[in-house]
Amino acid sequence: MTKPPPVITLLNDFGLLDGYTGAMKGVILQISPLAQIVDLCVNVNPQDVFGGAYILYTAHKYFPKGSVHVAVVDPGVGSNRKILCLKTKDYIFLAPDNGILSFIVDDEEPEFIIEVTNDKYFLPNVSNTFHGRDIFAPVAAHILNGVNPEELGNKISKIESLNLPRPVLSPEGVLTGEIIYIDSFGNTVTNIHHKSVERVRSSANNNVALTSGDISIEIAGKKILRISESYAESNSGELLAIFGSSGYLEIAANRENAKNILNVNKGDKVVIKNN
Amino acid sequence: MTKPPPVITLLNDFGLLDGYTGAMKGVILQISPLAQIVDLCVNVNPQDVFGGAYILYTAHKYFPKGSVHVAVVDPGVGSNRKILCLKTKDYIFLAPDNGILSFIVDDEEPEFIIEVTNDKYFLPNVSNTFHGRDIFAPVAAHILNGVNPEELGNKISKIESLNLPRPVLSPEGVLTGEIIYIDSFGNTVTNIHHKSVERVRSSANNNVALTSGDISIEIAGKKILRISESYAESNSGELLAIFGSSGYLEIAANRENAKNILNVNKGDKVVIKNN
Amino acid sequence: MTKPPPVITLLNDFGLLDGYTGAMKGVILQISPLAQIVDLCVNVNPQDVFGGAYILYTAHKYFPKGSVHVAVVDPGVGSNRKILCLKTKDYIFLAPDNGILSFIVDDEEPEFIIEVTNDKYFLPNVSNTFHGRDIFAPVAAHILNGVNPEELGNKISKIESLNLPRPVLSPEGVLTGEIIYIDSFGNTVTNIHHKSVERVRSSANNNVALTSGDISIEIAGKKILRISESYAESNSGELLAIFGSSGYLEIAANRENAKNILNVNKGDKVVIKNN
Repeated sequence: MTKPPPVITLLNDFGLLDGYTGAMKGVILQISPLAQIVDLCVNVNPQDVFGGAYILYTAHKYFPKGSVHVAVVDPGVGSNRKILCLKTKDYIFLAPDNGILSFIVDDEEPEFIIEVTNDKYFLPNVSNTFHGRDIFAPVAAHILNGVNPEELGNKISKIESLNLPRPVLSPEGVLTGEIIYIDSFGNTVTNIHHKSVERVRSSANNNVALTSGDISIEIAGKKILRISESYAESNSGELLAIFGSSGYLEIAANRENAKNILNVNKGDKVVIKNN
Repeated sequence: MTKPPPVITLLNDFGLLDGYTGAMKGVILQISPLAQIVDLCVNVNPQDVFGGAYILYTAHKYFPKGSVHVAVVDPGVGSNRKILCLKTKDYIFLAPDNGILSFIVDDEEPEFIIEVTNDKYFLPNVSNTFHGRDIFAPVAAHILNGVNPEELGNKISKIESLNLPRPVLSPEGVLTGEIIYIDSFGNTVTNIHHKSVERVRSSANNNVALTSGDISIEIAGKKILRISESYAESNSGELLAIFGSSGYLEIAANRENAKNILNVNKGDKVVIKNN
Repeated sequence: MTKPPPVITLLNDFGLLDGYTGAMKGVILQISPLAQIVDLCVNVNPQDVFGGAYILYTAHKYFPKGSVHVAVVDPGVGSNRKILCLKTKDYIFLAPDNGILSFIVDDEEPEFIIEVTNDKYFLPNVSNTFHGRDIFAPVAAHILNGVNPEELGNKISKIESLNLPRPVLSPEGVLTGEIIYIDSFGNTVTNIHHKSVERVRSSANNNVALTSGDISIEIAGKKILRISESYAESNSGELLAIFGSSGYLEIAANRENAKNILNVNKGDKVVIKNN
């Protein structure tokens, strides 16, 4: 059997209106012609490191083990911010050291982190404005070709981290979370994960029976009275709360745009309590 | 010669602003690492089953025989809507049973249709909100790997169908069609197909000499007096009628946006008659 | 070692909202199933030949030698405009003869140019509105398969050219350029290339010490007093001048959108002088 082509995923905010993402792919194919290059998401909001971090976290684990994930939302390009090569059990990440790997390292202890400094694996002429093309793409392609990450630079142990907002459970059993992401359908994703809810529910003195019928979810002055199992349980246009495909609680609207209905933004509070 | 990699095309409304389409590709590559994955169109208007059906129909036939077309515009995700595996002479389609295959089956009798129920080929944890990633992608990849579609579930004979609008020819020889699609250039595609026009023209008592110089095409209160052979026949900005690349009559404007000039929408009437 | 799959890049203004780019890829894979197809950029502004020419020029050279670049911004489709197959030292270009290769031929003498006329390599039914799918895609795929470009038609020596604006150096040492491209970050790219600046600087009676601290760059009534080495040298939101990744001088704003700050457009003047 033919050996499967190695996979590189691209996450960035370069978009598809210019030739930037295309040029990165060209560089990769020059060095690693058999690479299977996949856009994980190249339309992160410009310079939105948090949004990129969230998308990377939720999508990366669906790729084959051994995939190299190249995440370049990089407003600090050309500054002295580090470039990281971070290895988890299943993947290698290349990213600027600006917190874009925060969800990843929050979820899983890395096997090692290397500060990428060996310019042997960069393009010969490195611009100060486009490290995606001049550093990240060629380094990723060389890793795909078998270069040992340890050749890229020295190991480090501490990296930049975003302040990931955590839901807070009050002594009265009120759980307060917030919107951390709004997708292009207008589904508003909160930081309240299924796992954390299960943890609350399985604790002995559980005050919050989150999936029972006697709770309420408050957002933007509106109340939702249960957690649905599917969009289709609700009427068209009706707001609903549901654990989305990422495992986080989302406020959605059946066949409609919940963000527009609620007029909410990232950071807005979501409160869950017993009635 | 190396065996060509099998082709999977993706049509959906997940867009490119989130990680959804990326995650689907990751799942496919985990199961079928040699797959050649092509975006047929992943920017269908959110939940626009008709638009997705039209795009799928016009583009699918340009792909290699044996391609698996995965079409997931799926507002009913998580409801009890069926999931279909439909085989035509040259292609296999995976799609929710919501009419998105209407143009396909209108054009060609399927060889068989299967209701996909065998969760052996799904991801282990199926969400209720993202069957594209959890069901469609892995099933498509398994088909590429050689799984017999008959293993996916039972054959069925009846599927949901959209109400495809047909042009109407009055006894007086007036042909009334409507706009069924507007592309991103502002070209307005009608439901009047070249074939149906030829059928009219070749009938004995043909009252409508559609490509002759003495007809008029009325749309939004404007008259166009002939059917052009190319955009370039008209002056810049001038409205024109032309059989587009899909075979349907389009109202376009040379180097301009006909939709904006006419201020028309899907469903608006187009009337063709002798002067 | 497996022979690397041949690379085709696509540049066009078909966008990703319809099935047009998808259909082109289907056609390519029917003829050349091992092709590695990369979107160089398929979101050029509709019918913006100049913008397409610029993107093609800046990105094409990052692809592997031997890549076939298919550039179809083609407002004249269906007219008698020629179709070109142009060979440079490292690449083959397929494009309409409308100036889209202007930056390429301005930079490098082509090895040959062929007017593509041999319909043996077209799709059997060529529409008048979508030569990207019916002519460019199949011809490119046949070239990838080894068809000699000379079989496509006759050699020609003269092609259409855009009027590429050149910066002007006055006797007083004032250099006047203009904006030729604005990217999706709002960075405004001028026609003042690093090389031309170096040429000025290395001339004996050099009046313009462009990277010294005593120059000013004027754009839209604002003055910038030096050329930065990186975005990060400036404060957030501050305008800066920098040689971008394409080698041209750009007016940017650290973590902000310079186009919006300046309210400038393509063609607006940029003036560099000694203070």
